[in-house]
Amino acid sequence: MGCIQSFRQLCDYPKNTNVHISFPAVCFVWQTAMIILFGIFIRYNEESDPHWVEHKKANNLSDLDNDFYFRYPSFQDVHVMIFIGFGFLMTFLKRYSFGAVGFNFLIAAFGIQWALLMQGWFHSLDAEGKIRIGVENLINADFCVASCLIAYGAVLGKVSNVQLLVLTLFGVTLFAVDEYIIVSVIHARDAGGSMSIHTFGAYYGLCISWMLYRPNLNQSSRLQGSVYHSDVFAMIGTLFLWMFWPSFNSAISDHGDGQHRAVINTYLALASTVLTCMAISSLFNKHGKLDMVHIQNSTLAGGVAVGTAAEFMLMPYGALIVGFCCGIISTLGYIYLTVCLVFESPFMEKHLKIQDTCGIHNLHAMPGLIGGIVGAITAASASKSVYGEEGLINTFDFEGKFKDVVPTQQGGYQAAGLCVALCFGVGGGILVGCILRLPIWGDPADDNCFNDEAYWELPEDEEAASPVLHYNNHMQNKDV
Amino acid sequence: MGCIQSFRQLCDYPKNTNVHISFPAVCFVWQTAMIILFGIFIRYNEESDPHWVEHKKANNLSDLDNDFYFRYPSFQDVHVMIFIGFGFLMTFLKRYSFGAVGFNFLIAAFGIQWALLMQGWFHSLDAEGKIRIGVENLINADFCVASCLIAYGAVLGKVSNVQLLVLTLFGVTLFAVDEYIIVSVIHARDAGGSMSIHTFGAYYGLCISWMLYRPNLNQSSRLQGSVYHSDVFAMIGTLFLWMFWPSFNSAISDHGDGQHRAVINTYLALASTVLTCMAISSLFNKHGKLDMVHIQNSTLAGGVAVGTAAEFMLMPYGALIVGFCCGIISTLGYIYLTVCLVFESPFMEKHLKIQDTCGIHNLHAMPGLIGGIVGAITAASASKSVYGEEGLINTFDFEGKFKDVVPTQQGGYQAAGLCVALCFGVGGGILVGCILRLPIWGDPADDNCFNDEAYWELPEDEEAASPVLHYNNHMQNKDV
Amino acid sequence: MGCIQSFRQLCDYPKNTNVHISFPAVCFVWQTAMIILFGIFIRYNEESDPHWVEHKKANNLSDLDNDFYFRYPSFQDVHVMIFIGFGFLMTFLKRYSFGAVGFNFLIAAFGIQWALLMQGWFHSLDAEGKIRIGVENLINADFCVASCLIAYGAVLGKVSNVQLLVLTLFGVTLFAVDEYIIVSVIHARDAGGSMSIHTFGAYYGLCISWMLYRPNLNQSSRLQGSVYHSDVFAMIGTLFLWMFWPSFNSAISDHGDGQHRAVINTYLALASTVLTCMAISSLFNKHGKLDMVHIQNSTLAGGVAVGTAAEFMLMPYGALIVGFCCGIISTLGYIYLTVCLVFESPFMEKHLKIQDTCGIHNLHAMPGLIGGIVGAITAASASKSVYGEEGLINTFDFEGKFKDVVPTQQGGYQAAGLCVALCFGVGGGILVGCILRLPIWGDPADDNCFNDEAYWELPEDEEAASPVLHYNNHMQNKDV
Repeated sequence: MGCIQSFRQLCDYPKNTNVHISFPAVCFVWQTAMIILFGIFIRYNEESDPHWVEHKKANNLSDLDNDFYFRYPSFQDVHVMIFIGFGFLMTFLKRYSFGAVGFNFLIAAFGIQWALLMQGWFHSLDAEGKIRIGVENLINADFCVASCLIAYGAVLGKVSNVQLLVLTLFGVTLFAVDEYIIVSVIHARDAGGSMSIHTFGAYYGLCISWMLYRPNLNQSSRLQGSVYHSDVFAMIGTLFLWMFWPSFNSAISDHGDGQHRAVINTYLALASTVLTCMAISSLFNKHGKLDMVHIQNSTLAGGVAVGTAAEFMLMPYGALIVGFCCGIISTLGYIYLTVCLVFESPFMEKHLKIQDTCGIHNLHAMPGLIGGIVGAITAASASKSVYGEEGLINTFDFEGKFKDVVPTQQGGYQAAGLCVALCFGVGGGILVGCILRLPIWGDPADDNCFNDEAYWELPEDEEAASPVLHYNNHMQNKDV
Repeated sequence: MGCIQSFRQLCDYPKNTNVHISFPAVCFVWQTAMIILFGIFIRYNEESDPHWVEHKKANNLSDLDNDFYFRYPSFQDVHVMIFIGFGFLMTFLKRYSFGAVGFNFLIAAFGIQWALLMQGWFHSLDAEGKIRIGVENLINADFCVASCLIAYGAVLGKVSNVQLLVLTLFGVTLFAVDEYIIVSVIHARDAGGSMSIHTFGAYYGLCISWMLYRPNLNQSSRLQGSVYHSDVFAMIGTLFLWMFWPSFNSAISDHGDGQHRAVINTYLALASTVLTCMAISSLFNKHGKLDMVHIQNSTLAGGVAVGTAAEFMLMPYGALIVGFCCGIISTLGYIYLTVCLVFESPFMEKHLKIQDTCGIHNLHAMPGLIGGIVGAITAASASKSVYGEEGLINTFDFEGKFKDVVPTQQGGYQAAGLCVALCFGVGGGILVGCILRLPIWGDPADDNCFNDEAYWELPEDEEAASPVLHYNNHMQNKDV
Repeated sequence: MGCIQSFRQLCDYPKNTNVHISFPAVCFVWQTAMIILFGIFIRYNEESDPHWVEHKKANNLSDLDNDFYFRYPSFQDVHVMIFIGFGFLMTFLKRYSFGAVGFNFLIAAFGIQWALLMQGWFHSLDAEGKIRIGVENLINADFCVASCLIAYGAVLGKVSNVQLLVLTLFGVTLFAVDEYIIVSVIHARDAGGSMSIHTFGAYYGLCISWMLYRPNLNQSSRLQGSVYHSDVFAMIGTLFLWMFWPSFNSAISDHGDGQHRAVINTYLALASTVLTCMAISSLFNKHGKLDMVHIQNSTLAGGVAVGTAAEFMLMPYGALIVGFCCGIISTLGYIYLTVCLVFESPFMEKHLKIQDTCGIHNLHAMPGLIGGIVGAITAASASKSVYGEEGLINTFDFEGKFKDVVPTQQGGYQAAGLCVALCFGVGGGILVGCILRLPIWGDPADDNCFNDEAYWELPEDEEAASPVLHYNNHMQNKDV
């Protein structure tokens, strides 16, 4: 701890947000690298290649058997969650909407390319050393990027665009390794990514934020709030995340009942979360008023927490219970840990030195952990009577070298997967946090945090354009 | 009428918007009840259960025959209409956007759970007393909630969140009974719900608003208008409703040509409505200017009015004619009945004592009635030459005990269905209006109507944060 | 040129924006004409007609073979692009959001009806003289309208709603002829419409804008900028266009691998564009700051430029390269040609007398041309070894009278198609521009440009409603 403290001090330096050279350079070099690597490695898979027509005839398939028709609607929903959902959810700050939507766009656009490569090397490399991609790879790339966008939530407003690209480069790399270990080595199931996406992404972001702790940030906190219409913009993000979460959790589930069940479970868990989130929000306000921060974030906790178990036999009431609990826990997290209406200052900032702009600890970290645990319990209690003989094999993929696994073992695997995600998140976050503290990334001074001014050409102020105010300005000048 | 008048007076009392205890209590108790009832009644159906793999083999099906792939894209579109469409459509008020989007979210999240139960008891209860749910049930639950959200439009800004939960509880219950009678007993067809959703929902809301009439509301009408950007937010709602309405009307139509035809009819009716709505809006303004209220609402009337007949052989030109008429009627409704540019005060408020915040009378009630009538006429004029022998049976479901029904009879059934929807709406609305008038629900005083202040923690004002205005405030203080 | 100059002067006249009679008249007459023409010509096709059930049995098909299930999800995405995407992209102006979203809605709602007729006459007229429509026709109608919405971008804020309807009437007509020549006569392939939609639409709009040149417009340019929240609204449009562009380019591709490949290529090209667009935006700003105009527009250039080649074997790295180049070129276009940070005034306005409000030259014209060229090269270099024998026939439709075409020939056809699109755009634009200059359309005076005041009833100002400002106004009055 002392060592981290001194490393932090070592890296303190006067800030310069001019990324005039570094940002374009990083973009061009990395994008060029993507082109070269794609040229070497990435090819169309069987279903997106013109030879499909021959393959189809040889195997007596119809065009509808192309995975495209099973996955494409879900893919587009996930795409909306990544770009509109995460992007607009973060526009709640009064003067950081450009950064929220724009840098979210940047991270995701770079991340999906790098993710196709990283995930391809681990999962889809064929005998010729090529990565064959189809629509499922696109979904997985979007998933992978989600973990980096979660991490962005913790450092929102406090880092430069160059730092975000670095965060994404390492985040995607770590995710791919992490996911490979969880899914392929340990054989844990994680359809909606409670473990690999949310737990990993949240702890990755929180640890980066911990490394980048800014002790004097409070003074600029005037900009760390919302205004009326920025809260409405943020609701666009919230609602698209909420509505399309069933697609997220079902996008890569098994065809047929797997996708179908994942949708039902997620739909129910999210509905339940809304009620308990609003209840707690009202209960802890002295006039019973609701707080937009809770509605924007905690209503989504149920979706995170059924991520792993969505395709299992969680049962409809089970999904409701998970949502019920997460709505309470997540909202309490905002009240006690992040914003703190009770203690004098937010617990996490004061005691843990973690400044978590969007409260990802409450929306992704805690529900992610719950999701992992729920997944482990549901898997461990699976039985042939509930799933049917084939259903059990199908759902948990008890095939090949895993054909002798029994549900209780699978429960252990799930628990192990959760631990791996946690370790990768914390370890990776500390490592990348150290790198991002180096004085070369153009991050803003405390005064410039949460302010689009630093990285964006802003239009003239609306107020300054209004005739009434012009008059006032004029009066002012005359007085002087 | 006199009795209603005296009941209204009886219930007048000093208002207290503090829902500190009542709102969380209702949320927790009802959500807990949902969990218990789901535990007893709700199970996965054949297509979302792991036994699907065995069922599939036994019946020689492919995964694609799972209803999920027929319905899921439409379901997600409907979901967007419910949460973004209705939610943002109501954000037009300058100071009630949180309430519009947030309470819409609350109503829908509770309503879909209760609807799964209510509709399940009436339609899907199996021999074991279990309700088996799949994606079609989720769509139907969304549909059911739509009727409550329509009703919310009439009372927007004038009720508390507790009242809205009560409105939803009864609304869903009434809807389920109403729908059961219309669809199962009377055997009327109502794919897009012109009758069961729009007519019922609109009269339900209007009668509640009638019971909750506030004679002195005008004085606070400063807040009952829009501002520039709140009108733009509302257009997000309008457009998502408009674009996805073809999915709404086709979501539960027959596989194949039924869904296909419902989409085409709805697409055309809506396109036609836009032109006549804009024409009337311009014609009745002395400078030929357009009014955003009309564009936001009346452009959707065509979708409501082809709800029942969307899957019938309405013919493309028929859909255009329906849209043409509804665009005119709905816009005239806003001009003469709701906002009234011609008489001195709005007709509906002055003469009927109905305060209809969003003008649901013009968007849902009148077009819903038209939709019911169009459906009856289209059904009555169906013939084997147009539909084909099998097509006729298929489209109108002339099977089982209804196998001897002829189209003219079906026309009568449709008309009967419309009457049932109307009766349920009016009767239910008066009943629930009485309940909501009891002095225990924390509804706002007239001064607090259309103001988020009553139920939401608001961020500091944007204006107050601007430096120019700070200066002005400062000057003010000095002067004093 | 001199002749055009004198025609322009001839048509100068005092402006009157009162469209009180003309606008409703045009709407009613044209909509009535649509109903009559639909009554004569438009019928359901085999897949949306109730006889489908018999057709299905006769051909041993399943409901899933109905084209509806192949195309509907893509159709809805395209629909969102047309109404939300284009509509909100143009809301960036501080005081023209109603016009942007509302007139976009008007153009599209009229255009899709007229397009169904025009495209039907050219492509789907059957032996009985009827046009049989299904979901693919709806998609094509949306595509057709896209070209008119692109043209709207050039004249945004400078024309009346009546002029826009005229622009649409001719635009759709020209598009249908243009598309017929390109696709059916020349046999060029153009799945995503780089040539027929983007190149045609952009030059059509630019030439109209050239004909409507307003030499004194600069003085009202106070309104030609954005404000903070209007830029955020515009990002809604940008992101929905960006996310759903893969659906746009694949919506009418071949079932199976065609659609699948078009999605992958578009996804990759767009991702690559984001990085180079941001890089150039930052590089050409002296503090390295990003400009929202570039992010809102140039990030989409990659999608335009892979429109033609999306279904070909462009290869993943090829798509990245196309996106890479277009991000650079499009952003440079904004910097040098449209907004001009370098020369003293924008190049296009000063030297070419073209006032291009949204910069469609950079977003659609240049990338459209690039897209046509990329398509020609990719087609010319196609080979049986890459596509497979059947794949080649399938992809390029080398059937019927085109069965002897070889790829190099096809490359020539593609190039010819591009020239046709260009000619139609330029010629049509000049013609329609002349018509729109006639003094009968109610277009705004220079002072009224970019101001919703001219055609919309506006709500009272937010500022005027704020208590602080009321106080100031009050003070003002007292002082006097």
